[in-house]
Amino acid sequence: MRLADLTTPALLVDAGALEANLADMAAAHPGPQLRPHVKAHKTTALAARQTAHGHHGFTCATVREVEGMAAAGLGADLLLANEVLDARRLGAVVAAGARVTLAIDSPETLRAAVDGGVREVLIDVNIGLPRCGIAPEHAGALADTARAAGLSVRGVMGYEGHLQLLTDAAERARLTTECTDRLLAAHADVGGDVISGGGTGTHAHNTACTEIQAGSYALMDTAYTAAGLPFRQALTVLSTVVSTTAPAGDAPGWAVADAGLKAFGMDHGNPSVPGAAVWFCSDEHLTFAADVPPRAGDRVRVVPAHIDPTVALHERMHVVDGAGPDAEVLDTWAVDLRGW
Amino acid sequence: MRLADLTTPALLVDAGALEANLADMAAAHPGPQLRPHVKAHKTTALAARQTAHGHHGFTCATVREVEGMAAAGLGADLLLANEVLDARRLGAVVAAGARVTLAIDSPETLRAAVDGGVREVLIDVNIGLPRCGIAPEHAGALADTARAAGLSVRGVMGYEGHLQLLTDAAERARLTTECTDRLLAAHADVGGDVISGGGTGTHAHNTACTEIQAGSYALMDTAYTAAGLPFRQALTVLSTVVSTTAPAGDAPGWAVADAGLKAFGMDHGNPSVPGAAVWFCSDEHLTFAADVPPRAGDRVRVVPAHIDPTVALHERMHVVDGAGPDAEVLDTWAVDLRGW
Repeated sequence: MRLADLTTPALLVDAGALEANLADMAAAHPGPQLRPHVKAHKTTALAARQTAHGHHGFTCATVREVEGMAAAGLGADLLLANEVLDARRLGAVVAAGARVTLAIDSPETLRAAVDGGVREVLIDVNIGLPRCGIAPEHAGALADTARAAGLSVRGVMGYEGHLQLLTDAAERARLTTECTDRLLAAHADVGGDVISGGGTGTHAHNTACTEIQAGSYALMDTAYTAAGLPFRQALTVLSTVVSTTAPAGDAPGWAVADAGLKAFGMDHGNPSVPGAAVWFCSDEHLTFAADVPPRAGDRVRVVPAHIDPTVALHERMHVVDGAGPDAEVLDTWAVDLRGW
Repeated sequence: MRLADLTTPALLVDAGALEANLADMAAAHPGPQLRPHVKAHKTTALAARQTAHGHHGFTCATVREVEGMAAAGLGADLLLANEVLDARRLGAVVAAGARVTLAIDSPETLRAAVDGGVREVLIDVNIGLPRCGIAPEHAGALADTARAAGLSVRGVMGYEGHLQLLTDAAERARLTTECTDRLLAAHADVGGDVISGGGTGTHAHNTACTEIQAGSYALMDTAYTAAGLPFRQALTVLSTVVSTTAPAGDAPGWAVADAGLKAFGMDHGNPSVPGAAVWFCSDEHLTFAADVPPRAGDRVRVVPAHIDPTVALHERMHVVDGAGPDAEVLDTWAVDLRGW
């Protein structure tokens, strides 16, 4: 199949950029030092590529992601880096032979782990982002309670999510250390071999963690590129220009492509069209003004502002080599970890 | 099944609110005067409820929506109110017996209709929103060309999308008339029985169109409620509180629910939690501060800011009667018109 044969909108993965990103991160954090986060791509076929680069433990954000990874034979060491109040589906994954470690941050989530049949946990520690995680000074007590309840406490996790997109790298580094100091303090009380955290934005600064939970590095987006991360933009949304309006008097012209709010995560703002100003997105439309006005039927590759919620809107991604209409589609991967 | 048995996050449809919305709109625009837009709910089971209220023509935004509606036996009169450059899949739907009318606004989209086997079109007219549509003064010539190419031109469509959320109803009414005057001028040149347009926000003001393309009225969202529309909030996202942090000194406390960027369309901003301030959304989290702090395991119903892209993120919606954990799930509808 050629690029021109694809129905639009369509997720495209640039094979070369993806492999370069995977190789670069594997060089920085080889093997178990990286626990790739699958929430960024929700695609077991892509996770298999990360395995080929030496990473066999993965981070998940949902129970469905854990189930899907285990079903795909990628369940050697799955961390659900999130709290759940019902862990029975996770217990079933454990019973079927996969290794699942669950984050807990409260007596309620501890109880859910026990009741659901999960045997291994990490203590999730709040290291600065107002989200999940127990206060560092209470982490040790929760670990004690967990062990008393029969759980194996592998260590701690903490996510400095609020720092990932800081554009000042020095400031990002300084604040990352502040956060990981809190995590190390909690770890001193909790024990265990695992100190898990970090992300694409802080991976180079986070030297305290034994494993980095980066996900976005594989496919990238405009927000991480704006933050100065060195990875390549591997994912775009192929779209077709369906309408054009020529300039009239003082009014500028514009074009409309067939990818909109249902093709892009919008929390980081509009996606980008190289060589064009994006005006706005509608449900199935992107209105933009290009330096070189396109014609109806032309195809444009649109760059998402935020990769994770963008991928979650698509059923599949096409792996391509090259950009022209005759470029070959090398493979098509199901985005098979969507939903809950 | 009870509400408490649902995996979260989950789309909930309040059966009473939905039926009231459908009845109120059917009273205002009975039968063929309303062509419900399925892009707002992407659910053939909900479209069947609209049929039960007397509407047998539907508006679609994607080829997939047209295919799915026809496959569900709801293909009596489907309008794809959007431009496409490849109409072959639509032609196949026509050949299988459904009635499909396609919007065109250029020689290229006219040619696609002919080549794809579509036989009926509307001339899409730009009446003020910078998106698709031909300038009103050129609509007649495009209609002539279409008829010369063998197409049946049923009339015109034009969408005053930029007015839908204006909060000043008088201003919304005045500007709607400005827009529909342009549409009527184009219609005078084009001919045909159909003048299609309008939406939930302008349905009460748009007296020029023979049919209104409203969609959001069925399920609603905070944006349309803020614009003063009289329909009830029928859709919420059920979520579970997975983590809580108590106030500490001067720092306020917060809670985290398990519905985030992958459960809500975010282009209109954060969703709302009644009785709480929403701080921010992460991929699978909603951080909020509630007047009455919840406990881990509590469930909250979150109200989307924009219904269309919210629904597109979910596989199914559950029809419920009541709000408590023992409330019965009356039905579960597949969101079966997603994708492209």
